[in-house]
This record gives sequence, C-alpha cells and structure tokens, in this order.
Amino acid sequence: MSNNTNNILVLNGPNLNLLGTRKPEIYGSLTLSDIHDTLTEAAQEYGVTLDFKQSNSESEMVDWIQAARGKADGIIINPAAYSHTSVAIRDALEAVEIPVAEVHLSNIHAREEFRHNSYVSAVAKMVICGAGDAGYEYALDFLVSQIGSE
Amino acid sequence: MSNNTNNILVLNGPNLNLLGTRKPEIYGSLTLSDIHDTLTEAAQEYGVTLDFKQSNSESEMVDWIQAARGKADGIIINPAAYSHTSVAIRDALEAVEIPVAEVHLSNIHAREEFRHNSYVSAVAKMVICGAGDAGYEYALDFLVSQIGSE
Amino acid sequence: MSNNTNNILVLNGPNLNLLGTRKPEIYGSLTLSDIHDTLTEAAQEYGVTLDFKQSNSESEMVDWIQAARGKADGIIINPAAYSHTSVAIRDALEAVEIPVAEVHLSNIHAREEFRHNSYVSAVAKMVICGAGDAGYEYALDFLVSQIGSE
Amino acid sequence: MSNNTNNILVLNGPNLNLLGTRKPEIYGSLTLSDIHDTLTEAAQEYGVTLDFKQSNSESEMVDWIQAARGKADGIIINPAAYSHTSVAIRDALEAVEIPVAEVHLSNIHAREEFRHNSYVSAVAKMVICGAGDAGYEYALDFLVSQIGSE
Amino acid sequence: MSNNTNNILVLNGPNLNLLGTRKPEIYGSLTLSDIHDTLTEAAQEYGVTLDFKQSNSESEMVDWIQAARGKADGIIINPAAYSHTSVAIRDALEAVEIPVAEVHLSNIHAREEFRHNSYVSAVAKMVICGAGDAGYEYALDFLVSQIGSE
Amino acid sequence: MSNNTNNILVLNGPNLNLLGTRKPEIYGSLTLSDIHDTLTEAAQEYGVTLDFKQSNSESEMVDWIQAARGKADGIIINPAAYSHTSVAIRDALEAVEIPVAEVHLSNIHAREEFRHNSYVSAVAKMVICGAGDAGYEYALDFLVSQIGSE
Amino acid sequence: MSNNTNNILVLNGPNLNLLGTRKPEIYGSLTLSDIHDTLTEAAQEYGVTLDFKQSNSESEMVDWIQAARGKADGIIINPAAYSHTSVAIRDALEAVEIPVAEVHLSNIHAREEFRHNSYVSAVAKMVICGAGDAGYEYALDFLVSQIGSE
Amino acid sequence: MSNNTNNILVLNGPNLNLLGTRKPEIYGSLTLSDIHDTLTEAAQEYGVTLDFKQSNSESEMVDWIQAARGKADGIIINPAAYSHTSVAIRDALEAVEIPVAEVHLSNIHAREEFRHNSYVSAVAKMVICGAGDAGYEYALDFLVSQIGSE
Amino acid sequence: MSNNTNNILVLNGPNLNLLGTRKPEIYGSLTLSDIHDTLTEAAQEYGVTLDFKQSNSESEMVDWIQAARGKADGIIINPAAYSHTSVAIRDALEAVEIPVAEVHLSNIHAREEFRHNSYVSAVAKMVICGAGDAGYEYALDFLVSQIGSE
Amino acid sequence: MSNNTNNILVLNGPNLNLLGTRKPEIYGSLTLSDIHDTLTEAAQEYGVTLDFKQSNSESEMVDWIQAARGKADGIIINPAAYSHTSVAIRDALEAVEIPVAEVHLSNIHAREEFRHNSYVSAVAKMVICGAGDAGYEYALDFLVSQIGSE
Amino acid sequence: MSNNTNNILVLNGPNLNLLGTRKPEIYGSLTLSDIHDTLTEAAQEYGVTLDFKQSNSESEMVDWIQAARGKADGIIINPAAYSHTSVAIRDALEAVEIPVAEVHLSNIHAREEFRHNSYVSAVAKMVICGAGDAGYEYALDFLVSQIGSE
Amino acid sequence: MSNNTNNILVLNGPNLNLLGTRKPEIYGSLTLSDIHDTLTEAAQEYGVTLDFKQSNSESEMVDWIQAARGKADGIIINPAAYSHTSVAIRDALEAVEIPVAEVHLSNIHAREEFRHNSYVSAVAKMVICGAGDAGYEYALDFLVSQIGSE
Repeated sequence: MSNNTNNILVLNGPNLNLLGTRKPEIYGSLTLSDIHDTLTEAAQEYGVTLDFKQSNSESEMVDWIQAARGKADGIIINPAAYSHTSVAIRDALEAVEIPVAEVHLSNIHAREEFRHNSYVSAVAKMVICGAGDAGYEYALDFLVSQIGSE
Repeated sequence: MSNNTNNILVLNGPNLNLLGTRKPEIYGSLTLSDIHDTLTEAAQEYGVTLDFKQSNSESEMVDWIQAARGKADGIIINPAAYSHTSVAIRDALEAVEIPVAEVHLSNIHAREEFRHNSYVSAVAKMVICGAGDAGYEYALDFLVSQIGSE
Repeated sequence: MSNNTNNILVLNGPNLNLLGTRKPEIYGSLTLSDIHDTLTEAAQEYGVTLDFKQSNSESEMVDWIQAARGKADGIIINPAAYSHTSVAIRDALEAVEIPVAEVHLSNIHAREEFRHNSYVSAVAKMVICGAGDAGYEYALDFLVSQIGSE
Repeated sequence: MSNNTNNILVLNGPNLNLLGTRKPEIYGSLTLSDIHDTLTEAAQEYGVTLDFKQSNSESEMVDWIQAARGKADGIIINPAAYSHTSVAIRDALEAVEIPVAEVHLSNIHAREEFRHNSYVSAVAKMVICGAGDAGYEYALDFLVSQIGSE
Repeated sequence: MSNNTNNILVLNGPNLNLLGTRKPEIYGSLTLSDIHDTLTEAAQEYGVTLDFKQSNSESEMVDWIQAARGKADGIIINPAAYSHTSVAIRDALEAVEIPVAEVHLSNIHAREEFRHNSYVSAVAKMVICGAGDAGYEYALDFLVSQIGSE
Repeated sequence: MSNNTNNILVLNGPNLNLLGTRKPEIYGSLTLSDIHDTLTEAAQEYGVTLDFKQSNSESEMVDWIQAARGKADGIIINPAAYSHTSVAIRDALEAVEIPVAEVHLSNIHAREEFRHNSYVSAVAKMVICGAGDAGYEYALDFLVSQIGSE
Repeated sequence: MSNNTNNILVLNGPNLNLLGTRKPEIYGSLTLSDIHDTLTEAAQEYGVTLDFKQSNSESEMVDWIQAARGKADGIIINPAAYSHTSVAIRDALEAVEIPVAEVHLSNIHAREEFRHNSYVSAVAKMVICGAGDAGYEYALDFLVSQIGSE
Repeated sequence: MSNNTNNILVLNGPNLNLLGTRKPEIYGSLTLSDIHDTLTEAAQEYGVTLDFKQSNSESEMVDWIQAARGKADGIIINPAAYSHTSVAIRDALEAVEIPVAEVHLSNIHAREEFRHNSYVSAVAKMVICGAGDAGYEYALDFLVSQIGSE
Repeated sequence: MSNNTNNILVLNGPNLNLLGTRKPEIYGSLTLSDIHDTLTEAAQEYGVTLDFKQSNSESEMVDWIQAARGKADGIIINPAAYSHTSVAIRDALEAVEIPVAEVHLSNIHAREEFRHNSYVSAVAKMVICGAGDAGYEYALDFLVSQIGSE
Repeated sequence: MSNNTNNILVLNGPNLNLLGTRKPEIYGSLTLSDIHDTLTEAAQEYGVTLDFKQSNSESEMVDWIQAARGKADGIIINPAAYSHTSVAIRDALEAVEIPVAEVHLSNIHAREEFRHNSYVSAVAKMVICGAGDAGYEYALDFLVSQIGSE
Repeated sequence: MSNNTNNILVLNGPNLNLLGTRKPEIYGSLTLSDIHDTLTEAAQEYGVTLDFKQSNSESEMVDWIQAARGKADGIIINPAAYSHTSVAIRDALEAVEIPVAEVHLSNIHAREEFRHNSYVSAVAKMVICGAGDAGYEYALDFLVSQIGSE
Repeated sequence: MSNNTNNILVLNGPNLNLLGTRKPEIYGSLTLSDIHDTLTEAAQEYGVTLDFKQSNSESEMVDWIQAARGKADGIIINPAAYSHTSVAIRDALEAVEIPVAEVHLSNIHAREEFRHNSYVSAVAKMVICGAGDAGYEYALDFLVSQIGSE
C-alpha cells in the first residue's frame, strides 16, 4: 500500500505532552520524548519509519489520520481523553482502512466508569492498556507483523 | 435579515472531505466537490448564493455558524460525527437564530445505536437522512421556501 | 418491477385526516387533500401515478402495504402515531421490498421523548421530518430517482 | 507556586463570545467584555492579575490550561457546552494541579437533562451556577482566599 | 361548543365487553351493560345525553374520538390495554380538544409494571383507577361540572 | 370495625395549607378550609363523621394513620410531595388495614417525571388525580360505599 | 369445556399471509396454506377439529380469541409483530381461560433486541420458536395432551 | 457428519437430577429417568441413538459439548440455571457447529425477571419452554428432521 | 414585597449543627455559629436582617419556608441530606415565590452518585457548592443584588 | 469513649410500634416491648446498659443519633421504611462515629424491589435481616464484642 | 426432618480457603479452620452436629446442597463470589427446602456495585454481613432456633 | 517472591482447547499447543519457566491461581468466556497478589455487547485484545519486565 520502506503513524492525544513532568511518583519519569526515542530505535530494528505526533486537538488528529491514507502502513493511537468522546476520530480511522493498534498507558478498566468505553476500540485491530510505554512497543511489533500477512 | 441576495451557509462536518474517494462501491463516486457543484447550480436557479464549507474541527464549525449571523438566511448542516457528540455546535445554531436544515447522507437510524441520537436535531427545523446528496437539495429548497414565509 | 407507468403509494397514518382543520394557527391551514393535490401535480410532472390513502387503522395500513407488492415502485409513508408503536407496519414494509421514504410533518426530535424513536426508520431508505408538506414532495422526488437507479 | 503577584486564569468556553448581543431581553445586555472589566477591577482590589480568555475550541482551552501550570494560582472556568462533553478539559485541569472554580451563568439544573452533568465538576473545588456574572466574582474571591490557605 | 343538550362520549376499550361474565368472583358480576344503564340514569339526572360504546379496535376508538369533535362536551375513556400501547388514541384525544376523564376499573398501580404507564393520562384532565364502576360516575360528574366552568 | 357512626380520616400532606392563597389564577381561590367545609357537608349527607387534618410532617401523618386504627372506616389521603418519597406512610397505610383513597388535586401524570410514581398508590384501593377538590368528594363517596360492602 | 369433538383455534398474526411468497430462499417455499393443510391432517389423526385463521388486525385477533371462549379447547397463536406490542391480545388470552401455545417460526432471540420480549409469553403455557412450521405441530400435540389431563 | 447411525446428545443442567422427587404436587412425579426412557423409545422409532446426561457442573457440560463434535448430529440441551449465567456453554455450542434445540420444562417467561434471558438461545436453532417433558420429544423430532435437510 | 428593612432567611438542614465539632481536620473548625456570626456581620453591611436557623426536620424546614412568605426577601438554603430526598422542601420553595440560593459546603459532584442530584436546584436561582462557608456569603451577596433588580 | 458502663443505643424506625398487634399470624405476637425486655436482659448479662427508643420521625431519629455522640458505644438501628429513603439518618450515623449494626426483622431481599437498597448499610459495620427479633440480640452481641477490640 | 441429632451443613464458597493467610492486617489472622473449630464448639453446646465444607467449585456446592436433603436441618452458606453469579446454587437451595442462613464476612454493601446483589438472598431466611466470623455463630444460633419452631 | 528461576503461570479458559481445529479459515490454524511452543521458546530466552494450562472449569482455574501463590512471579490469563461471568476468578487473582496480564485473542470490543465487560480487567495490570497469539508474547514480555522493577 506504500513505498519501499513501511511507515507507522504514532498518534498521541490530549495532555500526553505532560507525561513525565506531572506527578512523576505516580506516572513515572518517562516523557513522551523518551517514548519517541525508544520506539524509534525499535522501528529501526524492524526497518520501518515512524511518524510520531501529539496533539490536544481532535480535528488535528482527524487531519493526521486522513493524511496517513496511502502513506502509513499502520497507526498506533493513544487517543487519551478522546477515546471516550470522539466519534470523529473513530470515523476517520475506519475510513482510511489502515490497521490500527490502540494503546493506553494506564489500565482504563480500573479507573472511572466513563473511561471504560472507547469509541475507537471497535475499529481497532488490537487494544492494549496498562502496560505503560511497553504498550507502544507491542503495538509496533503487532503492526509490523500485520504488514507482511495482509 | 440580510442583504439583497439571500445567502445559504452549507456546513460539512468531519471526514466528509473523504467522500467519493473512499469505498466508492459503497458510498458512490460522488465527491463533496460534486455536491458543491450541483448545489451551486440549484442555488443559482433559486437566486440565492451559497457558502459551502467543510471542516474536521468542531470549533471551526462553531466559528462559521457564529459568523453567519446577520449574513446567512439559512444553514444546511451535515454535522457527521459531531451530530452525536457536540453540544457546542447545537448551542451555536440555537444562538444565531437562523433556520437550520440537518442533512445526513446515510440513514443513521439503520446504523450503530450511538448514531441514532443527534444533539443538533432538536434545534433544526428539518432533518433528512438517507437521501444521499439529494438531501442537500431538498434542504436548500426547504430553506429557500422559509425565507419568504417568515 | 411494475408495468409501464411507475406508481407510488402514499400512506398517511392515524389522525392525519384532521390536518388543516385542527389548530390552523399552529399546524397551518393545509389539509391532507391539499397535500394530495400538490403531490398529484408533482407526480404528473414526473410521469408517475400516485395512490394516496389515509387510515386510522394499523391493519389497514399493513393491508395496503402488502397490496402494493408488485404494483408500487415506491412507498411514501407518514406513519404518524404508529411510527412509535407498530412493529407490524415495519414488518410489512420490510417484506414487500419496495423502496420506502418516511415523512413526518413536524420535527419529532423536538417533541416528547417517546416520539424520538420510529420502528419504521430502520427499514426506510430515507427519513425526513420537520419540512411540513414539502417533505412529501422531497420523498416523491427521491423515490422517482431511485426507480431508474436500481 | 508562582511569582510575586498572584495570577488567575479565566477561561470562557464556546459561544460565550456572543454574550450580550444575543437575546438581550433574556440573557441581559452584559457582554463578555463587561464581565472582563468588572472582574479586572475586582482583581486589582485583591492585588492579583487576571488572564481573561475565550475560545470556541476544546483544544485551545486544553492548551491554555496546560500553559497555566506554574504561572496561574487559580483557574476560573466557564466551560459552557464543553462541560457536558469534554474529558480532555477535565484531564487537563486535573493534571495542572491548580485550584479550579467552575462557573455557569445560568442554572444548568433547570435546563435540559443533558446539561445536568458536567465532567469538570468532579475536579473543581467550587461550582456555581445561576448567579450570572456575579458567579465570576464569587469564584475570584474564593480562589484568592485559597491562595493564602494552601 | 355543542347544541342545546350537552353530550358525553363514553369509550370502552378492548376486552371490556367480557366484563361480568369472566371470573365474576374476582371482577364482580356487573356487566358493561349494567354500567351503561347506571350511567345513563345518572346522565338523565344531569340533563346530559350519553354515547356509550365499546370496541376492541384501536382505530375504531380513534374514529369515534374524531367523530366526537364538535358533538361531544366531554369524553370518558377506559382505554384498557390500549392505555399502555396507543399513541394514536392519545393523539386523537389531544386533537379534538374535548375534556377527557380516564377511568380504570382496577388499580393499575398494583398490577404488572407495564400497566403503570398510560399514554392517555398526560392528555386527560382527570384520571381515576380502582373505584370500579363508580369511577365512571365520578368521571361523568366531573365532566358535567367542567361544561359550565369553561 | 368501628362504633355506631362511621368515621373517615382525611389527611392532607405538605404545602396543602397554602392552597387558595398561592397563585389563585392557577390553582383557583379554593382554600383547604373550603374543601373541609364542602366535604363536611357531604359527610353529613352520608351520615358519617370526618376527621380532617393537614400536616407538613411525614411522621405526624404516620402517627395519624396509626391512630386511625380501629377508629376510622376509611382514609382519604392527599400525600402531596410525600407521595413520591415516603415509604413510611405507605407502610403505615398498609399496616392499619383501612380502605384508602388517594387524591391528587392536579394531574400528576402531566407534570415532572419524578411525580409520576407514588409509593402510596400500590396500597390504595382507589387513586384519583386532576379532578381538583371534587376528587375528595368522589373519594368520600367511594369509601362510604365500601363500608357497607365489606 | 366444549362439545363432543375438541376444537383448536389457530391464530396467525400480521404479515404471515405473505409466507412462502417472500424471499423463499430464506423463509422456505412453504405457504400459510401449506401449514394449514399439514396441521389439518395432523388434527384429523388426533380427532380434533381446527379453526385456522390469519389476520393483520390486532382487534380481529382479540375478537377471535373472545369468540373462542367455550368453543375452543386450545389456542395456537403466532402473534408475529403483535407479540412485541399488544397488551390487548395478552388480556384477551388471559380472559378466555383456554390453554395457549405460542409459536414463532424463526428464533426471535437471534433477531433484533425489540423482538426478544413477547407480551403473550407470560400468559401462554408453552412457547416455541425457531422450529419453523413444525412448531405448529408440536403446539397442537401439546394442546391435545392438555385436554385429557386438565 | 457422523457414522451410519445418527446420534443425539441430550444434556441436562444443574438440579434437574432432582426432578420428580421434589415437590411432586408442583413439578409432577416424572423423574429425569422417566424422561430418559420415553425419549430413548422415541429415538428408537426415529432410528437414532441417544446420549443422555445430566450434570451440575458448567465445565462438565462444556466438556460433553466439545466431545460431541464429529460424533453427535444434534444437541438437545436444558441448561437450567446455566441458561442465565453461562457464556462458556454458549461458546462451546457455537464452536462445535451441531444443530441445537434448547428445552425448558417450565415457562421461564412467567417466572423471575432474571430467568427471561438465556445466553444459549441466540446460538440455538429452536427454543421451547413450558411444554414439560414433551419439550424434549419435540426437540428430538425437530433435530431428526434437520439431519436430512442440511 | 416586605417592610422597610429587607430580610433574608438562612436555612440549614440536617446534621449541620454538628459542624466544626466533627472531624475538624477534614471539615475545618468553623461551627455553624461561626458562619452565623460572619454572615450577620456581612448582612449588617448590606443593611439587611438575617433569620438564621437549623433543623434536622424536613417538616420544620417546610414550615419555616412557608412562614417566610411576605416576610423574607430571599432564602439561602443548605438542604444537606434533604437535597437528595425532599420533594416537600422543593414544593414549599416553589410556592412561596421568594428568590432562592442553594448552598453546599462541600463539592457534592465529587462525592457519592446519590448526592449528585438535588431536588432543590431546579427551583433555585443560584446553586453553589464546594466553597465552604464563603458559599453563604456569595449567596447573600447575590440575593441582596436581586432585591433591587426585580 | 464513654463512662464506666458501656451503653448501646437501640433505635427503631417508623411503624415498628405496631409490632405484635398487627397481623400476628404473619409477624408473630411479639411486641416491641417484648423485644425491649429480652434485649435488656441480654444487656445485663453483657454488663452494658441499653437506651431503647422508637420513633416515626426521621428528624427525631437524627436527633437521637447525634445525642448519642460521646454517650453510646454502639448503635443498633432498625430504620424500617427510612432505610430506603433517608440520607439524613445515614449522614448522622456517619458523623457520630459510633459502630452501627443495622437490623431488619424480615428478609428485605425477598420483598419489593425498592426495599432491596438501604442508604444505611454502607455506613454500618454489620447488617442482618430475616432473623426476626434474634437479629437484635446478634447485633448487641456483635457491638459488645467491638467495644473491647477497638 | 432428620434423625435424632440435628445436623447443620456449613458451606464456604470460593477463595475462603485463603482466609487468614492473606492480608492478615486487613482480614485478620483467623483461618477457616479457626472458624470451623469455634463453630464446632458452639454446635456441641447446642447439641447439633456440623458438616463444615469449603469449595471453589459451583457444582460441588450444588452437589453438597442436594446431598443435604433429608440429612441436614439447616444450611449456613457463605457463597462468596458465587453470591453474585450463581443461579444454580440458588435453585439448589430452593429445591432442598432446608432453612438457609446466608453469611458474608465483610459488609458487601460497602464494596463494589456488583457485590450488592446476591442471588441467594431471596431464598434465604436470614442474611448477615459484616460481622466477621461471628456471623457464622449467629447463623447457627438462628438455625437451631428454627428447628424447634417449625 | 519465588526461587532462583522466575516462573510464569499461563492460564487458558474454556473452549480454548478447540483453537486451530475450529473454523481455521477464521481463527487461523494455530493451536493452543502451537502457542505453548512459541511461548516456551520465548520464555527460555527470558530465562523464566512457564506453567501452561487450559481448563473448561471455573473452579479449576481458581485452584490453579491459588496454587500459584508464592510459586509464580506473574500470571498470563486468557479467561475466555469466564471474563464476563466469573467473580470467583477475579477474587482469586486479587487474593494471590501476583502481577496479572489479561489476554484475549480477538478484539472483544468489536463483538457482542455482553463481551465488552471483563470482571478480570480491574485486577489486572495490563489487558490486551485482538493481537492474536502475539498477545501472549507481549504479556510475557511485560510480566518479565515487572519482576525486576517491583
């Protein structure tokens, strides 16, 4: 579906830019930049390129998803708060027909009731939560394995 | 409420820019641009002007609705995914006091449960779904007929 | 599916016979007979014939829908109160396999909660509400356009 | 937590820019600018500075909240329509750990059912509704009193 | 609203024709005919005429209500099973603008959950249940008192 | 169950003491005292005595119901606001085993959702609403008729 | 309860008259007439007579159930769409005190949510669904076995 | 799908081993052994063999269903209490791809609310309840008829 | 509506008499008497008189509200536990037609689910929670401002 | 927490004063006075004193609970009807910080749906129902055992 | 119902075998064996024998309940997790017609929502929770008292 | 927590033993044995041992979880159908205090409504679904990383 080197889009939703600098004793001292670095390294081993982004804007996330069409071979998305409220992101993901892996750093099932449902989950291939930053790596590994098999 | 020539604002919500290029065997090969052209032609016959826009952004849609105040004589809106999640768009439509016609290309009542409710419907004058692009034309015809009768 | 001239069945549900004579300051002075006349005229322009009926009886509506099988090329139905309570009409519409356009004169989404759901909508191709008698004309236009395209 | 002079961020959500110019017989003739002026005056008496903003954009509100970290000593927020739909704003408010006062001009408990719940309330210290523009002043007074006591 | 002698329509819904002959040890030995006789006698004392009918048909009940328009000065209705399922009867009663008294022989609040709600109640002036046939007499007395006072 | 002359307890719940003096254009100019007088007169015709009381206190109402045991032959109760919140009054009524007639001046089914349910209804023999003060008279007539028939 | 030869009433609800002629590849080519013939044959073996009817009308079904009183020894009913909406048919079945067997051709538990509940089931002795036309035969066998055992 | 002689697995769920010895005046004096004998006789007439089992264990029922794969041509299951709580039995039935007939001795629709739903029903071909032990015979007859027709 | 000096009724509901003496490390050491003193002082500055009361009794609160009619120009009420259970207090407040300000010391939206709804809120002009004793002062300020403007 | 001899407050809610004299064939002939006597005897064996009270008044119960603070070492409460409707009693119990044992004479889980929830249970240490008057004795034994262990 | 010496079956559900060894600082250091010993001692005083068992298996619990028929004079059951999910245990308890006392060590009403409902409660005579191991002793005392009184 | 070599328990729930042999065109041809082999290999690389088990029995799964206490350093569990119905497994997992990773082969959020909730998720550290057999590997990797970090 894309050029010689496969590409994975990594989308991070609202407030994830605060990672590592807020309540480090709880959320750990890892920043989004750290996750980017680790994931980039992993991507190099798989021989794929990464497009790693963060936004607080629902529409920007929709734009990026649309733009990935024909360019990305997989999407790793941590929709954060938009998991629970955005039908637009779900529709965009469904429209571009790229395999999606949904990642949550914390275990959303052990938090408030309104965080138990994610609009995105039904259009994702794989959903992982609670594994911290390793969730991104598992998602990457999974999407890479899908590229060959489709 | 406005100048010599009446004006209709046509607002298209998130992901509608993908129309025609995605799954044409299902959604048809008509693009949003095609809808724009047909509707413009119809508008000319009615002697009204059109302001035809699309956005993936909830706030941009709110901005455009607010800007239409005192300028537009009717609003045709296909809120797409925001139908089901945006109170802000509903509030904007209610505030500007311009007749609203809500259009959905597909029959939302035959889709997922969460698409059955639209926040916008209660503040619209007319709601149509399932008629494809013709829905826009009916909406235009309806709003034009309202201009004289108010 | 039918003979030389295409035919559209127009079904009006309970209490619609009172139209125009009740609370004219609210519902307008248009009677069902007026709607019949306007629609017949429009039909002539499209070169289709109309079968325009009204009934307060759920079973009579079911009978008429069944009888339309192989005779009508489209059904315009304003199920009125039966929208919200009749599975029988829904089943009949689904069984005869004729394109259905559902019309409501008022915006049912701005009325009582129990009027928000219509059993018929899921088996209709198109649903319109709030456009008054124009809704019938849009429905006719839509069904005529379907005849050629199927 | 901040420099010599304490600072309060005042955030106004979607459609509040229309205040005063829409239906003045109902909402009063006070504009958001009037509220800004009155509140600024009050702030001067308390010896604090104000950062008064309005946005129709959910993400812009999230950005401003994040930016307030380490800079503001309190946040007055009137989330308007986003009260009922934004988990992202709630998460941002929770993350920056600044005392929050939630203000609604009208009594949301006397309006539509879907306006009774606010995602923001659970992370606010104080919630006030129905007191009109005075609500902002009470919120300011409250936050100023919190600065000393924490 | 009507001619010299005032007239009250008394409508009895489905299965009420079985009254008195079914489980007399429970429902009493009074038949619908007995109720008719007693009520007619009472009507004569009030100087009003009665139109006393029973039907198992929802549409026949709608027809009778519509026909009462301009002829009846009050409607006593025991909608029986249709209380819980008929929006059509409710709409008809609302349309004809005649004072309505709703009567149930048994106390529906002490029966199955689905009998607790009646679509008719919201458009009735008075609702009585559990008083047996006396309920009809109270309804008659009430409606007669309304004729003078409107 | 009682002495020579039969006795009926008439209980009026919270805020009914305000009757007639509040919003007379809506609720009418009839006071609770007027209802007392009319009902007393009616009681004299039936040859029964009345015990007519009003209380804003749930427990006082419970006390009075308990005290009626072995003394009253029927209870007319207008529980007003306690209809919707008092299990204690329901339990008291059920315990004393005296026939109960529940009266509401207005049609509670046409008011707010939370007024549609009454804890008392399930233990009453008869329930009437919307008939204004005549409801008390019908209740009295009904209870007197029960005395002989039990 | 009846004369020398026992009699079974077989009631078929709305749209069942279309059986066999609609979507034969799905519903099979068996018509209601075929079911009638097979069932009549079976009845002859049991030495009972059949009264086999179909109606699209709720009230006609109620009438037929009432008429069966004292004449039929069992009722086989396929209420079709009325299963889910008719309290009147339920009340009629309960009133006539004849053993009832409810039959559905398809498995209603594997269809839309609103088809999972049947008002009739609670007053039936036996309920069968999904067995196609054989369901009628099992119902007949069951009702015949009940005649002797009561 | 199996060898020369067709085989039907008959599974009885928890507490059915008590049949006949508990409350015989209510449940009848028929034991599970009696049902076994009658059903075996019927099976012989159809020329099929039976594998008749009972278990109080959910997992044993799952094991037996799995073991039936490739060996049984039909499964008659009375899941008893597990109808309402076991997703595991449903999954097993769905996995082995053998036609299933679900039997309940009593009419579960006339019992407690929590017995109205059965996880098994959606994966069964046929569901019967309330016909007592005859339900097993009808299920057997139905499954035998399916063997030829698939 | 009242005599020369304006008067504000301040009502405190059940258990508020324990304030300050229970869990001072959580609720603070302020007693209801302290709140009374501060508020009285504030009232003197506004030139209004206060009637400050506390009761554990729902009916006493209803009595006091009724007695305020024609005497008080505003009511500050902290209904405490009765917020969530008393329709009687709501009805009384609605009946006396005096502006109402509802105060809660803690943020009820951050507590148990059953504390999120208050029957009183819909009939109050202003609702404040979470501001501690300052909430009373804001309510007083608001009500005083209303006196002039009505 | 208290003086030399430990003291237990025993609170009985509305209608419990009728015990023994109402429907003795159902509730037994034991009166509240009998329960008092037996419990007093038991208390003497434990060397504790009892304060045994009954009230039909929610506020009186709140008052007594508050008054127990610093005086009682345990509270046995049978809130009767107030279990299901009183947040005020719950709040009082929570505030006084005395171990609470909740007692119901009958098994509330086998009664009406609205009796299944008790506001009090979440703040009690122990809850017992269905054990009749012995429930009080177990509650006493439990509370006495708590005195030593805290 | 049994031989000379009365016997009580004591059933402990899943994970109760871990008692005392898990989180002793929370659950106490009492093991199930300790409860067995204390209860056995108490039983000896009452002159009854105990059959004390624990199982992690739903079906084993059903088996043991069935086996108790005609052998046990009472059942003390702590269904633990099966309280909330097992209809099979409920059915078994109901079938064997032995008085049941349900015991929970902790107060399930102060835990997660899904632990508030117990299928077993409606078929138990007595339910106790939160009294720790003493709950077993009270249950034993209660059941022994029932033996004589039945 | 354990001996020299770390150990991971891998638990597979009901019907997973059918993997690979059922509908291979849908579920793939991988068997549970294949998963075992791949995972064992991976474990060897991590230097941990595996205990890989499958059961159709809820209680056996509870037993194995309990037995893992003090022996396993992590639990990978695919509870299959028991995810949605077993509180017992949840309680066992919570009791043994070993890090838990929950794995589902398919995306349960894209399946039936009743599969969206898992009792286990709230007590797991990590939850993954839709990644097929790779989910097990990610879970293993995650648990191994936890061993060092705790």
